[in-house]
Amino acid sequence: MSGPSLPIDPVALARDLLRCPSVTPADGGAQSLLADVLEGMGFRTVHLPFGPVEAPTPNLYARLGEGHPLLCFAGHTDVVPPGDGWAHDPFAAEIQDDRLYGRGIADMKGGVACFVAAVARRLEQGPLNGSIALLITGDEEGPAHFGTKPVIEWLAERNELPDFCLLGEPTNPQALGDVIKIGRRGSMNAVVTVAGTQGHVAYPHLADNPVHRLLAAFSELTAPELDQGSEWFEPSSLQVTSIDVGNMATNVIPGEAVGRLNIRFNDLHTGTGLTQWIENVVQRHAPQADVAVSVSGEAFLTQPGPTVACLSEAVRTVTGRVPKLDTGGGTSDARFISRYCDVAEFGLVGATMHKRDEHVELQTLEDLTRIYLAFMEGYGV
Amino acid sequence: MSGPSLPIDPVALARDLLRCPSVTPADGGAQSLLADVLEGMGFRTVHLPFGPVEAPTPNLYARLGEGHPLLCFAGHTDVVPPGDGWAHDPFAAEIQDDRLYGRGIADMKGGVACFVAAVARRLEQGPLNGSIALLITGDEEGPAHFGTKPVIEWLAERNELPDFCLLGEPTNPQALGDVIKIGRRGSMNAVVTVAGTQGHVAYPHLADNPVHRLLAAFSELTAPELDQGSEWFEPSSLQVTSIDVGNMATNVIPGEAVGRLNIRFNDLHTGTGLTQWIENVVQRHAPQADVAVSVSGEAFLTQPGPTVACLSEAVRTVTGRVPKLDTGGGTSDARFISRYCDVAEFGLVGATMHKRDEHVELQTLEDLTRIYLAFMEGYGV
Repeated sequence: MSGPSLPIDPVALARDLLRCPSVTPADGGAQSLLADVLEGMGFRTVHLPFGPVEAPTPNLYARLGEGHPLLCFAGHTDVVPPGDGWAHDPFAAEIQDDRLYGRGIADMKGGVACFVAAVARRLEQGPLNGSIALLITGDEEGPAHFGTKPVIEWLAERNELPDFCLLGEPTNPQALGDVIKIGRRGSMNAVVTVAGTQGHVAYPHLADNPVHRLLAAFSELTAPELDQGSEWFEPSSLQVTSIDVGNMATNVIPGEAVGRLNIRFNDLHTGTGLTQWIENVVQRHAPQADVAVSVSGEAFLTQPGPTVACLSEAVRTVTGRVPKLDTGGGTSDARFISRYCDVAEFGLVGATMHKRDEHVELQTLEDLTRIYLAFMEGYGV
Repeated sequence: MSGPSLPIDPVALARDLLRCPSVTPADGGAQSLLADVLEGMGFRTVHLPFGPVEAPTPNLYARLGEGHPLLCFAGHTDVVPPGDGWAHDPFAAEIQDDRLYGRGIADMKGGVACFVAAVARRLEQGPLNGSIALLITGDEEGPAHFGTKPVIEWLAERNELPDFCLLGEPTNPQALGDVIKIGRRGSMNAVVTVAGTQGHVAYPHLADNPVHRLLAAFSELTAPELDQGSEWFEPSSLQVTSIDVGNMATNVIPGEAVGRLNIRFNDLHTGTGLTQWIENVVQRHAPQADVAVSVSGEAFLTQPGPTVACLSEAVRTVTGRVPKLDTGGGTSDARFISRYCDVAEFGLVGATMHKRDEHVELQTLEDLTRIYLAFMEGYGV
């Protein structure tokens, strides 16, 4: 079922992608370039622009083959702004001392290029057993409302969900082979606004100090350990990110206080459960308070099984190292995918991502291509 | 020793004083007017301008007689700004429906006029036993650095301290005869600045959240009752007046948090003791924190004795009411005087002080004059 394969050099493709200035929400031609390459390999591609008609989010879905298993690689072509102070043009894809420099090479145009190159090598070995897809968004570094989330929903509606999803985020802190991510913590924010009754500090009985109510509530929220971690997760963490009153009059009890907090939570909690806990605690100390909670992602976990073992073995084969299975760090688009199918994350070394002079060692691009190929072989696609 | 007395109408003198626009730090001619009247009664007067040479605080000290007892009346001629929305010109001293309107009539030009009128009546009865003084400042409603404080120190240096001081603040909340103040709570402010280590909320172990340290310290400071009050004082009260961080980034642990608090404390505490307590608590939760404390006044009490009883009896004789001996409310210049001699406060009705259309009933000016006269007689001056 697969079309003609081409020899694809991961370094050359990565450099082509780097030269597309795709700072979110711009695409910079990255997805068209990728679609052309994939179509040349026999993929069917479809652009899926979701969101406002006047400025839709660019998304690309490509599939080669019809049957199962359907292995899907998920990633993004958008990058964070370069910022100042680079020694290398962030969009010139310069190579120096066996390193490739450019905004997004680690996060994650390099990973995308390696996967495409790995598919090309796989196709040289013969036709696929099943099919391979790529789900590429242009809004992973932005609000992410109209990226991976609606694309995976679109796939679910069409009964085209992958059997397994491999996300190409730069999971390795220091060296290729460090870490496979098999889950992510959930994240939520709460803004607590306590209205009191303003008054003179000399007459506290005539006032109602909202700072004291907020202090009592936030002390209770910060006092306990949320948990001690679970099998695959670090302990959950609640951080108060701001408290603001803005009253510089030393003799005045203020009329309002606002507190903000973020929780990174593991699979022992849900956003709904934590929301209820916060609301209950605040309610007890400040019955009139307004509590605005937004859950940006639930915790999720892909229980290690044969597929994760296969990915781990591919990493070990190429790098000689056994990767740690981990769930730490921030959020990724895997939170959207995990609702529909198992997902694991493995990509390049992220040490310089989001920083000046983002770069990777050239050798890691070749090694990651081999890892992805070994995974396909092991997975049996 | 006393000079010739004049018949003084408290209402007429109060109106003359009201027409001097003496919004702090302006004098508006008020103290010269007062000095002229007092000199006409035989007082020796001295202007005591303390503070910056280019803008000194106007202060007036006047004394009639040489011997003891020396009874001193303390007060101020400055007033707070009128603000908007008056139905009466705040500096025209209008009379309507048996009420005298004007900024400062209650706080406290009326009290000053009544005392001067009472002295005139006393002098009509014969020469003083001892002497009477007036200590009048023009900076009670302002910073008060160069008002009553240096004047009382100047008197101490000259061995001219009063035996008793009567302060003419409007102590009565609703009706003449409500309250004699025999003390005031102390007041202090603290600003606690906690420096932490900024970081990403996903990696709290790499950061040091200053908000959590401030929360812990301020929770400990606000948790206990400072005391349950003492014989003459309400319980002390600590109010957190502000907490400010200013971090709107939901994924960032901030680098600094600032908290502010005020304590109104009774005679069971001292500013030094409370400062040490605050420093100890903050030190325990945030060793690197900066704690800036300023004590604006210690608590003080004039133990009720014969002189306060005499003032109380004067109030009862004129009003038919037994005044409550009280120490509540804000601070006054009595905090400076109390370091050197016993002081009690009694004046007009303060219900409209610092508000629009400040006014007093004309009858209260006559009644307060009689109370001050009865007190002089009872005190034996």
